Amino acid sequence: MSAIATLTNHQVRLAKRPVGTPTRDNWSFTSEPVQEPSAGGVLVKTLALSLDPAMRGWMNDGKSYIPPVGIDEVMRAGGIGKVIASENSKFAVGDLVSATVGVQEYMLIAEDQIKRNGMFKIDPRLGTPNQWLNVLGMPGMTGYFGLLDIGLPKPGETVVVSGAAGAVGQTVGQLAKIKGCRVVGIAGGRAKCDWVVNELGFDACVDYKAGNVKAGLKEHCPKGVDVYFDNVGGDILDDVMTRLARGARIIICGAISQYNNTTPVQGPKNYLSLLVNRARMEGMVVFDYADRFPVAVAEMAGYLKDGRMKSKEDVVRGLETFPEALIKLFTGENFGKLVLQVADA
Amino acid sequence: MSAIATLTNHQVRLAKRPVGTPTRDNWSFTSEPVQEPSAGGVLVKTLALSLDPAMRGWMNDGKSYIPPVGIDEVMRAGGIGKVIASENSKFAVGDLVSATVGVQEYMLIAEDQIKRNGMFKIDPRLGTPNQWLNVLGMPGMTGYFGLLDIGLPKPGETVVVSGAAGAVGQTVGQLAKIKGCRVVGIAGGRAKCDWVVNELGFDACVDYKAGNVKAGLKEHCPKGVDVYFDNVGGDILDDVMTRLARGARIIICGAISQYNNTTPVQGPKNYLSLLVNRARMEGMVVFDYADRFPVAVAEMAGYLKDGRMKSKEDVVRGLETFPEALIKLFTGENFGKLVLQVADA
Repeated sequence: MSAIATLTNHQVRLAKRPVGTPTRDNWSFTSEPVQEPSAGGVLVKTLALSLDPAMRGWMNDGKSYIPPVGIDEVMRAGGIGKVIASENSKFAVGDLVSATVGVQEYMLIAEDQIKRNGMFKIDPRLGTPNQWLNVLGMPGMTGYFGLLDIGLPKPGETVVVSGAAGAVGQTVGQLAKIKGCRVVGIAGGRAKCDWVVNELGFDACVDYKAGNVKAGLKEHCPKGVDVYFDNVGGDILDDVMTRLARGARIIICGAISQYNNTTPVQGPKNYLSLLVNRARMEGMVVFDYADRFPVAVAEMAGYLKDGRMKSKEDVVRGLETFPEALIKLFTGENFGKLVLQVADA
Repeated sequence: MSAIATLTNHQVRLAKRPVGTPTRDNWSFTSEPVQEPSAGGVLVKTLALSLDPAMRGWMNDGKSYIPPVGIDEVMRAGGIGKVIASENSKFAVGDLVSATVGVQEYMLIAEDQIKRNGMFKIDPRLGTPNQWLNVLGMPGMTGYFGLLDIGLPKPGETVVVSGAAGAVGQTVGQLAKIKGCRVVGIAGGRAKCDWVVNELGFDACVDYKAGNVKAGLKEHCPKGVDVYFDNVGGDILDDVMTRLARGARIIICGAISQYNNTTPVQGPKNYLSLLVNRARMEGMVVFDYADRFPVAVAEMAGYLKDGRMKSKEDVVRGLETFPEALIKLFTGENFGKLVLQVADA
């Protein structure tokens, strides 16, 4: 019996689809023996998982940009893992990789997934594994391509980002500062607002839990909002739309305020501001930019190195805490990129 | 006493701002003597007025793309008139002009308005005065620049337009056909739908009064909607957003379903379809394209001449019918561009 055959893989599976906010009974906890990789494949041990708002969408049935997670399937999740067995010449035991490992301790990755660029080696010199889930990972890539390719910010313009202390928000705001923009965040609570201003260098931050977002935007965006990077939707999107500058660009990245709705999504009731201001609202999905990730990662790693970019993670430990950890995203409890640490090495 | 001093100018003024659909008591009917033009100005006799959904917005107080009409001011309206007195060397008595004449029989146009390109001569060889209010006028220019500059249609793509039998809609659909697209209209009633298909050459038309718009779009847009030119907003916008193709472009030209709302505007509740489909929604205001109107008019006049473009007007007669005529736009009663004929020559 090999060492691998003695290992047990603990897993979190989708037991039933949620109505509203997911609860513990949406999940089942299973375990099964770990298997050796087949020809061309690798076996990865999960170190850390990325917890993302998009996961809520994957739990719903119905057409979206990727298929839903099936009932009784292991929950989909991106993460960082370590190769512990390899039948593929491109990956060696000990390599750190980024892959869709799922909410489980071990993931067998078959050759065809590797061929479809379903995993790639991460370079620990560019950032820590947690940074590879944050500014060097999907949130960072989302912020990078959403802001730069869709938002098209020009130096001196005003960029507003909601979920400012979240994974995508922190990237967007810092990158917009690097590109010469005035940056105003929107976040929940004094601590987050202080952090994005004092630590990340945003010009201002509006605390949506403290009161009037419109008034805060009026104060801090005297020339209007040229670029709005929207992670939240709902009332905040409505409020920002009252302050658009002529020719504004809104990037629709997500709508975390709406993901647990049991009623229809709240559409942006001020959308006619697009007409008055000749403005644009455009959606983006980060996977579309995969062939440009290496260039973006190199740029972002440079900013990390020279100190212009900071990366904050909120680390929760233990696979079994997944159900509760996920909910932190929707209550706004997480502070920085939410990471589930599954194993230390 | 000159002949002009014997003339009386009948006018329709905004008496009070409407709540919901305008009624006759939003208006006052006044008359005053006609005056001679001052140095550099002209006196124009109104022949025909353009009645447009946008007028409803001008009646509201508050910031928009142009200032609201003031209380007791003559209602703003674009129209075609004839110069009957001129102190400006560029305009001769008898010239036909397009200008913001207002809902009145005579309009004095001062030199500074002329200098700001507030009026221009129309060429009767290119089209009739009513055509100059329709496909050669603001609706035509709106359709032209909205479709081509914002919608960016490619041959073979599917273009959907709401208000298909209206002034803007008929231009958009015919132009999209000329540009090689598949064109599906949305209109109210069998007669309008038959007309856009049989007379204007649309590929199909969905009758929103007959039932399920979503099902109609599914049938007639099997590859999804690449370009949606939205004149109506509301439920129809929601329905179209369920059928967007990857990379779709939505032109927000207006939202006639929402203009008489006394409750907040109905935001597009399927706006996250922009994200899933990497699609874009963008507003436009036709005045921004004024310097390119001559080129567009020449192109459109060519299509009128060679029969590829048809122009249908719904002509109502008499200044005093203005309040009731305007409402036809919001009930969908008008069939083609709504024109108020004020005088015959």
